[in-house]
Amino acid sequence: MAHHRFKPNTYYTTLGSHPPALNIADGDRVCALTADARGCDESGETVANRGNPMSGPFFVEGAEPGDALAVTLHRLFPNRPTGFTGTRIAPNVLDPEYVPDFEDEMDTLLWAVDNERRTVRPIGLNGTLGDLELPLEPMVGCFGVAPPRGQAISTATSSTHGGNMDYRGFGEGVTVYFPVFVPGALFHIGDGHAVQGDGEIVGTGIEISFEMEFSVKVIKGADICWPRAEDMRYLMVAGNARPLDQCVQHATTEMVQWLKERFEFSTREVHILLGQAVEYDVGNVYDPAYTMICKFPKSVLDSLGLLPDGTETSVVGLRAPS
Amino acid sequence: MAHHRFKPNTYYTTLGSHPPALNIADGDRVCALTADARGCDESGETVANRGNPMSGPFFVEGAEPGDALAVTLHRLFPNRPTGFTGTRIAPNVLDPEYVPDFEDEMDTLLWAVDNERRTVRPIGLNGTLGDLELPLEPMVGCFGVAPPRGQAISTATSSTHGGNMDYRGFGEGVTVYFPVFVPGALFHIGDGHAVQGDGEIVGTGIEISFEMEFSVKVIKGADICWPRAEDMRYLMVAGNARPLDQCVQHATTEMVQWLKERFEFSTREVHILLGQAVEYDVGNVYDPAYTMICKFPKSVLDSLGLLPDGTETSVVGLRAPS
Amino acid sequence: MAHHRFKPNTYYTTLGSHPPALNIADGDRVCALTADARGCDESGETVANRGNPMSGPFFVEGAEPGDALAVTLHRLFPNRPTGFTGTRIAPNVLDPEYVPDFEDEMDTLLWAVDNERRTVRPIGLNGTLGDLELPLEPMVGCFGVAPPRGQAISTATSSTHGGNMDYRGFGEGVTVYFPVFVPGALFHIGDGHAVQGDGEIVGTGIEISFEMEFSVKVIKGADICWPRAEDMRYLMVAGNARPLDQCVQHATTEMVQWLKERFEFSTREVHILLGQAVEYDVGNVYDPAYTMICKFPKSVLDSLGLLPDGTETSVVGLRAPS
Amino acid sequence: MAHHRFKPNTYYTTLGSHPPALNIADGDRVCALTADARGCDESGETVANRGNPMSGPFFVEGAEPGDALAVTLHRLFPNRPTGFTGTRIAPNVLDPEYVPDFEDEMDTLLWAVDNERRTVRPIGLNGTLGDLELPLEPMVGCFGVAPPRGQAISTATSSTHGGNMDYRGFGEGVTVYFPVFVPGALFHIGDGHAVQGDGEIVGTGIEISFEMEFSVKVIKGADICWPRAEDMRYLMVAGNARPLDQCVQHATTEMVQWLKERFEFSTREVHILLGQAVEYDVGNVYDPAYTMICKFPKSVLDSLGLLPDGTETSVVGLRAPS
Repeated sequence: MAHHRFKPNTYYTTLGSHPPALNIADGDRVCALTADARGCDESGETVANRGNPMSGPFFVEGAEPGDALAVTLHRLFPNRPTGFTGTRIAPNVLDPEYVPDFEDEMDTLLWAVDNERRTVRPIGLNGTLGDLELPLEPMVGCFGVAPPRGQAISTATSSTHGGNMDYRGFGEGVTVYFPVFVPGALFHIGDGHAVQGDGEIVGTGIEISFEMEFSVKVIKGADICWPRAEDMRYLMVAGNARPLDQCVQHATTEMVQWLKERFEFSTREVHILLGQAVEYDVGNVYDPAYTMICKFPKSVLDSLGLLPDGTETSVVGLRAPS
Repeated sequence: MAHHRFKPNTYYTTLGSHPPALNIADGDRVCALTADARGCDESGETVANRGNPMSGPFFVEGAEPGDALAVTLHRLFPNRPTGFTGTRIAPNVLDPEYVPDFEDEMDTLLWAVDNERRTVRPIGLNGTLGDLELPLEPMVGCFGVAPPRGQAISTATSSTHGGNMDYRGFGEGVTVYFPVFVPGALFHIGDGHAVQGDGEIVGTGIEISFEMEFSVKVIKGADICWPRAEDMRYLMVAGNARPLDQCVQHATTEMVQWLKERFEFSTREVHILLGQAVEYDVGNVYDPAYTMICKFPKSVLDSLGLLPDGTETSVVGLRAPS
Repeated sequence: MAHHRFKPNTYYTTLGSHPPALNIADGDRVCALTADARGCDESGETVANRGNPMSGPFFVEGAEPGDALAVTLHRLFPNRPTGFTGTRIAPNVLDPEYVPDFEDEMDTLLWAVDNERRTVRPIGLNGTLGDLELPLEPMVGCFGVAPPRGQAISTATSSTHGGNMDYRGFGEGVTVYFPVFVPGALFHIGDGHAVQGDGEIVGTGIEISFEMEFSVKVIKGADICWPRAEDMRYLMVAGNARPLDQCVQHATTEMVQWLKERFEFSTREVHILLGQAVEYDVGNVYDPAYTMICKFPKSVLDSLGLLPDGTETSVVGLRAPS
Repeated sequence: MAHHRFKPNTYYTTLGSHPPALNIADGDRVCALTADARGCDESGETVANRGNPMSGPFFVEGAEPGDALAVTLHRLFPNRPTGFTGTRIAPNVLDPEYVPDFEDEMDTLLWAVDNERRTVRPIGLNGTLGDLELPLEPMVGCFGVAPPRGQAISTATSSTHGGNMDYRGFGEGVTVYFPVFVPGALFHIGDGHAVQGDGEIVGTGIEISFEMEFSVKVIKGADICWPRAEDMRYLMVAGNARPLDQCVQHATTEMVQWLKERFEFSTREVHILLGQAVEYDVGNVYDPAYTMICKFPKSVLDSLGLLPDGTETSVVGLRAPS
């Protein structure tokens, strides 16, 4: 299990079958430097094109189409003192007839990111918001694998391969399972946010360069359709599409499959369970494809005696052990 | 401040300008008996037509069009030992091509509701789910006021007047603010759920008769457009429409208005604040109109020193005190 | 088969179970005066409230829940010299970020309606549009029956009972079949347009008072779910909902049923036929519920020898003759 | 103005910046052979992968980002005797709860395509549909240019670059204007349909190999956002997205721009004109991105004296002559 440190020479604004930047083995850990959404690195220098430039792709040995790639996010460290956000709720998130009466021309807002205090603060705001301080909640906005059919899909959007899901639940400690479509999976990662509201409704989180430390694991023949994930409390599935209704459909259908495959519930049991215990989160309602997350609480599995280690911190994984 | 006990003689399956069942004063408290979604009361007797029959309407003295009616839910007590749920995730929540391969013909499932242990358990299930126990989380599925224009709107759906929002956050301790469209507001309530998953994706929560205890307060000239609410942790707005994207638009726009009116933020400040601190919940994705909730955390207001009592338990209300 | 002339005393801005304004027999013909969308009659006098006030309701003897009411529009005569339109494409029809840079404050535009020349012309416009002349194409914006469950549904919107569908295909010569939900059907009609673009994207057609001449026929036990219609060229079904995708679903599903019931096609045959011969029109994309029309060409039925009279002008009706 | 005959060696199932298959000059005409949606050519041999394999790309000399590429479809000739269709309306086009009760397992249906009679007929159907004959109406399902940002977008879907729009109005005689994103435009074409219903609701038209004859013209600095088109009767814009509502937004906004730029109407005039004269067609409601067409009748421009040749057959083009 090697531990790699990776600083990109080349960045990509699509997730696609680009030449691998690094070959890694199943189980390896990588600490990757990532540029911010506008292509600026930890020193504030522009090193990549705008629009969520990706670090990678990482060729994971042994990953084949039909497998899943499990990516565990161990450490998400914003590695410079300031990030930036948009300052206007996107028009598609507000009533069509709403026109904001802004008092200024502000386009971008800088935020101080303090890894010690684990907070963020806007810079240069007067008035009440001058005192605003929010807890640091680092997350990955855009990551995923090379899509099928030789596609190269913009890092502005998302689909079955992952991509720009902008879900604040993709933070430290989560394991995300991506379907593998090409040999080596070709994993890309970037677009870190120090903080983000649900929905990414101003079009950004607090965009900043990162050190992102993750490990990978290949799950053979997992045969999943959409990105799945788990943390200490939840199983999660991301559905990426428009409108949000369709995200719900993708995510819920995939969760039905997961619970059936993993725990050998009957179809009826899964419908009953989800009916009274499902939860949903909004990933983003800004990008070309929106994201909804279907969540199932591990506490319910625990109360049924189904967690592998008998504790809520169990890793559930994709399939029942055979 | 009188305290009324109310047992309906007549139930309505629309929210409309029906003859008032009880006149109450601003500030009064009511303990209303409600039938379940199929019209059965606490003794299991059918007392009303199916489809979310409402108790009320309550004519609130002094409420006029343009006011808001604040309804605080003090106590939600399921008053019989069993409720029921559907057993099938609604087809609109799943991928269009998904067809479930059910192993049985089960249509309705009974659940034991235990007010002492504060849990619910399915009745008569064998296998793993025989041991399922979920925490009791009582909520109101359908409530609201008479809509404008002389409409009588089915209790299957929802709109600006409230209605069948099926949001699990509408539980004990919440205060909901409805826009008033007719003299007396004509408040209706019913459709209690002992438990419900996000989205009400099987078309029901655990449907059961209730004692619902609430108080009302008239807020003059509040001039709100959509149901707003607050509990100890959040300001909330409900947007009711299809698709979910449109719910997001209604709820977010109303939240922008609320924060501006109440705290005299600038438009820019509200956009910045919501951008990094907004949250969304799914009410329902089953009813003719879906429901999304836009939430703003009181903790952020607290950190800005804006909560009236200087504590997170402050009631924020609709307008700045003049 | 009586011929009634009807001038309303009372107008309604909901379709609901209002007291019948006129009892008519199966087969009767009515010439009804209708006010325009703002409640002005043929003399320009305000006789009703704004928002598509309806003439009626007409109680049709013999109509019972489960029947269909066939309404044939014989003559649609705009009975005053001017109508009006909005002058701004509704924001929901344009990209969210589009903000129009209007050169004036014009809110309403008057149009001269010429029944002789059968044209309309804008009044008081300078420049190129001063010469604009469009062909008169009179249509009914809002009509339908009392909805189920005791609802009273705003004439701003539409559903299974018909209502504000704003489809330009509902002109002279069309027969519309409404599902009957209450005894007597309680038919309402109004909101005439001298001309309208697809989608009613400025929120109005050319709104004007009308003489609307129609006849009614009760079709027992027809058991339809959505408004159906036919003219000389097409079978049509209206689906009313949001988003447009859902309108398509309702309308297409109802068309599948219609073709199966009427012609005893197999399910496979209907799917094949619609696949290569279906057409769709946009009714409106402005009202709270949008409208899409699923159309099937009578020419295809004719080529299969299925038209009852062996001519394209055959009335197809709802069911095969038994 | 050279005339090329092109038979592909390589086919692509994405529209992307692939190596040019042929360099052509501004004004050239090409007769390209295209495979059907499953990759079969005129002899029925499988020559390409499934999923709308494209012929091309054609590098058009002089085309630069910011230009438009005008492609005129001169001749669309199905070049083998049979095509095929799906036989089932896609579940997303029907009500979620609708489950078809098919009487057979038929998956694909063959159709005889007769270029002499200009008709199509299903093969091997018994019963009423055995006699079905529909008029030949050849069209291009998928065509467009290389998208921006180095993307390679699946030929299953569509966006600003064109792609799989499946609009039956893209037939002989139409000129389509694509925005150019890369040097040479890199035009791709294929996926011909002998016939198709609106919406492509069974997931196919009558899929067949073609000889497609087209010419290209570069329009410098046209700066358009979405595919535009014109035929003898209409100006057209394609909006490609989900849901259909969003397609309407894209297409209508682009039509507003077009009319303003080309005819120097004021913003108000364009809103008024579209309000009473716009038309919409459904392209497809099947593909990952749906397509709606916003149409404006040339007859209205003619009546205003705005057509360049003073006849309805005038080519309008993108910009006013300077």
